Amino acid sequence: MIVSDLPAAVAGVFTINQICAAPVKISRQRATKKFARAIVVNSGNANACTGRQGMTDARRMTQFAAKVSSINESDVLVCSTGRIGVAMPMKNIERGICACAPRVARSTSSARQVAEAIMTTDTRRKEIAVEFKIGRSTIRIGGICKGAGMIQPGMATMLGFITSDAAIEPAALKRALKIAVGRSFNRITVDGDMSTNDSVIALASGLAGNSKSEIRGSQFQAALNFVCLELAKMIVRDGEGTSRFVALHVRGARNDRDAAAAARSIANSSLVRTSWCGGDPNWGRILCALGYSKADVDETTVDVGYAQPGSRKILFAFRRGRPTNVALKMLARITSASEFDLHVNLHRGRGQFVIYAADLTENYVAFNKGDITDPATLGG
Amino acid sequence: MIVSDLPAAVAGVFTINQICAAPVKISRQRATKKFARAIVVNSGNANACTGRQGMTDARRMTQFAAKVSSINESDVLVCSTGRIGVAMPMKNIERGICACAPRVARSTSSARQVAEAIMTTDTRRKEIAVEFKIGRSTIRIGGICKGAGMIQPGMATMLGFITSDAAIEPAALKRALKIAVGRSFNRITVDGDMSTNDSVIALASGLAGNSKSEIRGSQFQAALNFVCLELAKMIVRDGEGTSRFVALHVRGARNDRDAAAAARSIANSSLVRTSWCGGDPNWGRILCALGYSKADVDETTVDVGYAQPGSRKILFAFRRGRPTNVALKMLARITSASEFDLHVNLHRGRGQFVIYAADLTENYVAFNKGDITDPATLGG
Repeated sequence: MIVSDLPAAVAGVFTINQICAAPVKISRQRATKKFARAIVVNSGNANACTGRQGMTDARRMTQFAAKVSSINESDVLVCSTGRIGVAMPMKNIERGICACAPRVARSTSSARQVAEAIMTTDTRRKEIAVEFKIGRSTIRIGGICKGAGMIQPGMATMLGFITSDAAIEPAALKRALKIAVGRSFNRITVDGDMSTNDSVIALASGLAGNSKSEIRGSQFQAALNFVCLELAKMIVRDGEGTSRFVALHVRGARNDRDAAAAARSIANSSLVRTSWCGGDPNWGRILCALGYSKADVDETTVDVGYAQPGSRKILFAFRRGRPTNVALKMLARITSASEFDLHVNLHRGRGQFVIYAADLTENYVAFNKGDITDPATLGG
Repeated sequence: MIVSDLPAAVAGVFTINQICAAPVKISRQRATKKFARAIVVNSGNANACTGRQGMTDARRMTQFAAKVSSINESDVLVCSTGRIGVAMPMKNIERGICACAPRVARSTSSARQVAEAIMTTDTRRKEIAVEFKIGRSTIRIGGICKGAGMIQPGMATMLGFITSDAAIEPAALKRALKIAVGRSFNRITVDGDMSTNDSVIALASGLAGNSKSEIRGSQFQAALNFVCLELAKMIVRDGEGTSRFVALHVRGARNDRDAAAAARSIANSSLVRTSWCGGDPNWGRILCALGYSKADVDETTVDVGYAQPGSRKILFAFRRGRPTNVALKMLARITSASEFDLHVNLHRGRGQFVIYAADLTENYVAFNKGDITDPATLGG
């Protein structure tokens, strides 16, 4: 449970999957309000595709949480993550809420406990915090998230919770979160699957005491962008079974939408991602995925190059429609590292997009294929 | 090489990838003519992303083939399959064309040799032939193809060559091939990657001596559909590293386009395909992929069920928005077989689509990831 001492400005961005979990339906509606007090989260069961019972159960979760925190039910948002299609074990849930309520405290360790509690297939806790000044006030923004599988850009991905003591108008927080999510959680992909439960929720309590008018033009947006982007990258680096992290920069597209289409087509291609797994600079597959994207592509103007993370020294494999003479060994030296940058320039306009992607490994398959001899993995 | 004794009616369907190989550019144009005499094919090198030199090389292949067959260059179509971005080894190509030209003969074994020669990562030769009557004439349609990787519906996929002795107007053959491809090669998926080289070419010599007017309303279209569909299914069954073949039937969509979008979203989902690999009836992931498809979906009306291949006895896992009480063990009994049917009904209209799909296995990744210690696998 995440509880704010005061009514906090609230904002949320949710999955655009047409089939979404019961808690998403409830939280999406409650995040449109100005203020909220708490978020109750469970992992292990997604409460998705659970029919009317699922809605009843999600609402009951907010009722329990409100009761133990002495706040209004409508001030509680709810998130679930885990298996799809299984009824919620409400007795466990109720017991859990009662047990953790007294432990909600203003301490670093309790935030850490939430970050651990929401993990499912994550191998690492994901958390970050920043501090900056607005006028004389010190503002803090903290974030935690969980990810690992069903990660696809184009919507808020996974569960992410941002808390801040900034004083900010609810409408301004909603705008800021939308921008930050668009530049972070919507720019990552692990397996191209968009979850039924993706939610990013922000609460800002105002305890920092800054004047709300000072937020505009302040570092608040930059800090929020940073927190979201770092969390998003943690999700890709901890993607199920992944072994390589690739920052793919598409430039020179007709427009930003084309750049995004090209980037997603490449980053979600099974053949591109398996070649990354092998550390293979297989630019032919990149061109192939580029060609079948919805972006406007002219083969004769395309550049494809590789670089070490953050380096401006791009080693081109393909330039203006022709393979370069670069030795594959030189390219492989870059692509065999655990992180590298991939640069694609379409030379058609000024559109650009960055996506953070991961490779497709045998471990991903082994991890997700389930085991029909083990009923515990079935239906989840 | 495939050579017709007489000028044959010609038709072709080609990849819609914006980045397409040089031979595709040449054959696409030559397939718009009424007649052709020959197809020259190589495997091992795709002649894609090879710039102007690639166009010169592809044209030279048709020149060599025309010369050794004593026909016109413009009557020769050309196809290549294999690595992308590597210059064609034209000396080998020329030697190969000279060597195989005298072996082109009207015999079953030479057709078989072509089917074998075009294999790349295929583990099995893919061929089929049918015979039927039109009036007093016996018509034959034979087909061969290669597939295995970069298989994605939405265009003619892979290389396929259909030959017939039917007498048919070129325009009628073009119409018939387009229909047959739409119902076969465009309804399969292995990995969701659309190749730069996909081509299906048909030649009909007229040697059967039927009257061309008899073709209309005859079994010709049905026979061509059958040949293409059987070849297409062979490609999925022989997909790189695949272990399961799934016939996915989507019904009740708002329209056929929605049905196709839903089917492709499910069949290309990494998480759905890995669950198939494990024989896991993970219908939650199917609903998730359905929800993020472009099809209009209402969770409360969706059915998801499994059946043995071709069986009408559907075991439902999810009906009208709610999980059924069916035991997972019962579902797993179906999904643990090497082939099964998956039925999804959206109950939104009358749109339908069938797609033939395969699972995603560790072997697919191992096969495609390349090995940076082996330069032979690089860049291909």
